[in-house]
Amino acid sequence: MQDVPLLISRILTHGSTIHGSSQVITWTGEAEPHRRSFAEIGARTAQLAHALRDDLGVRDDDRVATLMWNNAEHVEAYYAIPAMGAILHTLNLRLPPEQLVWIVNHAADRVIVANGSLLPLLAPLLPHLKSVEHVVVSGPGDRSLLDGATVQVHEYEELIAGKPDSYDWPALDERQAAAMCYTSGTTGDPKGVIYSHRSIYLHSMQVNMTQSMGLTDGDTSLVVVPQFHVNAWGLPHAMFMTGVNVLMPDRFLQPAPLAEMIERERPTHAAAVPTIWQGLLAELKGKPRDVSSLTQVTIGGSACPPALMTAFDELGMRVCHAWGMTETSPLGTIARPPAQVEVGSDEEFAYRLTQGRFPAGVEPRLTGPGGERLPWDGESAGELEVRGPWIAGAYYGGQGAEVLRPDDKFSEDGWLKTGDVGTISPDGFLTLTDRAKDVIKSGGEWISSVDLENALMAHPEVAEAAVVAVPDDKWGERPLATVVLKEGASADFDTLRSFLADEGKIAKWQLPERWTIIASVPKTSVGKFDKKVLRRQYAAGELDVTQL
Amino acid sequence: MQDVPLLISRILTHGSTIHGSSQVITWTGEAEPHRRSFAEIGARTAQLAHALRDDLGVRDDDRVATLMWNNAEHVEAYYAIPAMGAILHTLNLRLPPEQLVWIVNHAADRVIVANGSLLPLLAPLLPHLKSVEHVVVSGPGDRSLLDGATVQVHEYEELIAGKPDSYDWPALDERQAAAMCYTSGTTGDPKGVIYSHRSIYLHSMQVNMTQSMGLTDGDTSLVVVPQFHVNAWGLPHAMFMTGVNVLMPDRFLQPAPLAEMIERERPTHAAAVPTIWQGLLAELKGKPRDVSSLTQVTIGGSACPPALMTAFDELGMRVCHAWGMTETSPLGTIARPPAQVEVGSDEEFAYRLTQGRFPAGVEPRLTGPGGERLPWDGESAGELEVRGPWIAGAYYGGQGAEVLRPDDKFSEDGWLKTGDVGTISPDGFLTLTDRAKDVIKSGGEWISSVDLENALMAHPEVAEAAVVAVPDDKWGERPLATVVLKEGASADFDTLRSFLADEGKIAKWQLPERWTIIASVPKTSVGKFDKKVLRRQYAAGELDVTQL
Repeated sequence: MQDVPLLISRILTHGSTIHGSSQVITWTGEAEPHRRSFAEIGARTAQLAHALRDDLGVRDDDRVATLMWNNAEHVEAYYAIPAMGAILHTLNLRLPPEQLVWIVNHAADRVIVANGSLLPLLAPLLPHLKSVEHVVVSGPGDRSLLDGATVQVHEYEELIAGKPDSYDWPALDERQAAAMCYTSGTTGDPKGVIYSHRSIYLHSMQVNMTQSMGLTDGDTSLVVVPQFHVNAWGLPHAMFMTGVNVLMPDRFLQPAPLAEMIERERPTHAAAVPTIWQGLLAELKGKPRDVSSLTQVTIGGSACPPALMTAFDELGMRVCHAWGMTETSPLGTIARPPAQVEVGSDEEFAYRLTQGRFPAGVEPRLTGPGGERLPWDGESAGELEVRGPWIAGAYYGGQGAEVLRPDDKFSEDGWLKTGDVGTISPDGFLTLTDRAKDVIKSGGEWISSVDLENALMAHPEVAEAAVVAVPDDKWGERPLATVVLKEGASADFDTLRSFLADEGKIAKWQLPERWTIIASVPKTSVGKFDKKVLRRQYAAGELDVTQL
Repeated sequence: MQDVPLLISRILTHGSTIHGSSQVITWTGEAEPHRRSFAEIGARTAQLAHALRDDLGVRDDDRVATLMWNNAEHVEAYYAIPAMGAILHTLNLRLPPEQLVWIVNHAADRVIVANGSLLPLLAPLLPHLKSVEHVVVSGPGDRSLLDGATVQVHEYEELIAGKPDSYDWPALDERQAAAMCYTSGTTGDPKGVIYSHRSIYLHSMQVNMTQSMGLTDGDTSLVVVPQFHVNAWGLPHAMFMTGVNVLMPDRFLQPAPLAEMIERERPTHAAAVPTIWQGLLAELKGKPRDVSSLTQVTIGGSACPPALMTAFDELGMRVCHAWGMTETSPLGTIARPPAQVEVGSDEEFAYRLTQGRFPAGVEPRLTGPGGERLPWDGESAGELEVRGPWIAGAYYGGQGAEVLRPDDKFSEDGWLKTGDVGTISPDGFLTLTDRAKDVIKSGGEWISSVDLENALMAHPEVAEAAVVAVPDDKWGERPLATVVLKEGASADFDTLRSFLADEGKIAKWQLPERWTIIASVPKTSVGKFDKKVLRRQYAAGELDVTQL
């Protein structure tokens, strides 16, 4: 067979010729959205590459960052930078400024392409960015914010104007770096994940397979998941393979404009995290809109609450869970129930609530508390490890590009340790039950903190509950139940413990002995339970613990 | 990203676990077909690999041939042989015996796995096969035909019985040879095409993409296209990626059993060459059956006549053209009209009559008579050249595995010359107009022999017409029209020439000057016009040619 590399330039050329009439539609907040055909995107991508090379001196594996919303120019950057051989570095505009500075300096970005609307975020950072020589500004926004900056400032449209609209894309090695994205872990410095041309190409094929997102050129996908978040789940690449039209919300991510763009542009598919959809649902309740075009919604990032899934079903939008992480490109699983399961049945709903089924490109295994391999029986819970051509094998470690392969992230034989604990059914559906760092390791067995929390929160007098592992002389670790009672509640710990044991909700050996009442569960900046704080408070003797 | 190779063993493991309950259904001609789950196929594949390695001594890149119909055991051979690292060599049982002998000797096959029903074909060949040490027989058939053979004869079921049902598949290089298939060219010796693990893996992903065959685990595919014919168009591999059930007709390829298996097993998809469907249509007219399950039919090998396409539309079966060749794995194009084209419209039908649209993995270009690149304007006809990771870059040249790269098959920069002449539309749809060897090269321009023939055969008094290139002092080549008139016809050459020119059917400079009446057009063994004979007759002065 011909030794033809799997390159992003090939996806670009295919999409901008064979699917040249498909469109990237960017919401502008004005009467008409902006429409650009794939053919125009292709021509402008070539112009951008010429400008980056000839005017800005981008060479070899230089890092070119983007600080942008989802829009047509961001798609152009997605293609121009890797296709010419450089590395696209998408910056997460939600990160605290000091983390952004750290990341840009760590990646040694030479250029930042930024939306004008994000200059209030970027301008104060510039004095701290050591490697950045050029800022290219696109779209509306106050340019005077960059007055006095020591970098060279360029207007995107002026920069590319008049450049040739084709480019002789180089024949790269498919294993060469194409893009990078930093994970914002809760501990330690952010870690860079490098995507290769090969991994992005294969991932794009997977996204377009029938049992994945399953989109065609008859679809328009509303890409709410940010392009700075794991390549917008692969959609900007996948769409050029099959001609899927995309609707890009730019900075208009609030429920009202999202509802309006759905009504007016009639996308058939959308991709977003659950919180976005919760807001949209509330908006639609207050002000009904025609959202009938939107029949398929891919949800990832965290699990979709069953009630939300049902609410969307009633609107005719079918929610499909997907699971992944920055290290998995991100597509790891997608929850399309087996075809023989009856549509609308309880069995089908149960399949839809799982994280989903593994495709051939993602090989999973479950590792138990003692390092043993666990069976796929839908019951044995272990840490999920994965392997495959679009799964990270290391992290990016600085300008010398040293490879970081920490033990807690990679097994000895090179599999990615996901840090997620769950089960796999015999037919390959993943159900996550906990984070590995939150699971309670008791006497060689694992107890899911999430299961205990959900069971506790089902009690009518419990407002919130968090369960954390605490040291135990006999068992290694045991669960500590921290409970927030509703106002006027009278339940005592014995009652709650019996409630957990009743009807076999929780196995006897998993029931907590240690209990405490707290005023509220400490939360992280994104609203998740911050169990580190509880563990620290317990260790410092700050909690009033009752032992049953 | 992890450096995980794209291997057939990975497809096997995925399909036999995550899609373990999907089925290979083999028609037996008896009351009940034979059903085998993917999980069972997986276990038996491991057993077969153990038997081949331990009992038959298959090692490294040994060639193991199959002489089999489409059935579950052939699927097992498809996986066991490449997954263990050897090379699957599918033998075309329709070839003349002397060609089969030549091919087996050229490939130096050590083992042949054969269906019992094909022993009448195989037994007489054995004395001429130099490298074959073992024959493994599967399924019904008279074993006594092998009495006295000097090879070792094994029963498939006895050979695999009791072997371990798992196998530690080796970590191969993805570019290693996995399978081979010989093309039966009309001139010269057959040429071997080698498929790598990588090419088969990527091709399988493509087959499963939405805009390709687009099948899911809710489908059952009737695979009429033989497994000895370019890997049955990739279906046996693709199905293990997505859990598509397959219905295998074994030796029951006649219209009546095909109609019966469609009615009884209710496949949703089928893949076959047009002649098979023509027979099926006649059968259904004579004896109507419930074939309503079959909504999608992929047709390749040669173009589906429009009338046949319409006839199948009326039955509710939607025909979808695909184009490919042994050298293209075979998926080159597939004719799914763009989504914005109205279903049922003339425009849509025109799209469906093309050979189809190129996927991202197949890069096309058109080369004109002078070697120049032609535009994709739907009008400029040139020889189609293709490039991609599942396109052959050379042929297999014997035991030393020398690489053959003949000039007439590969361009200087390594593209495959398909030998097909056609046009490409701006949106990437291929329309083939002629074979390169039949096109008339006149004054630096090309004249399609097929266009002239079709135009001539539209005349009410013409029964058949073949047009061939003949040498011309001024123009290099000019067309010679050879015409078979209907009984009682009175049209003369001037009338026919005017008919061609009328209403702009044929451009003036393309009109033939040389005409002759013949009794019938010479045909090849498969019923195609044999233009070699006409050219030879002309050269020998055996035709009575009128010059207008």
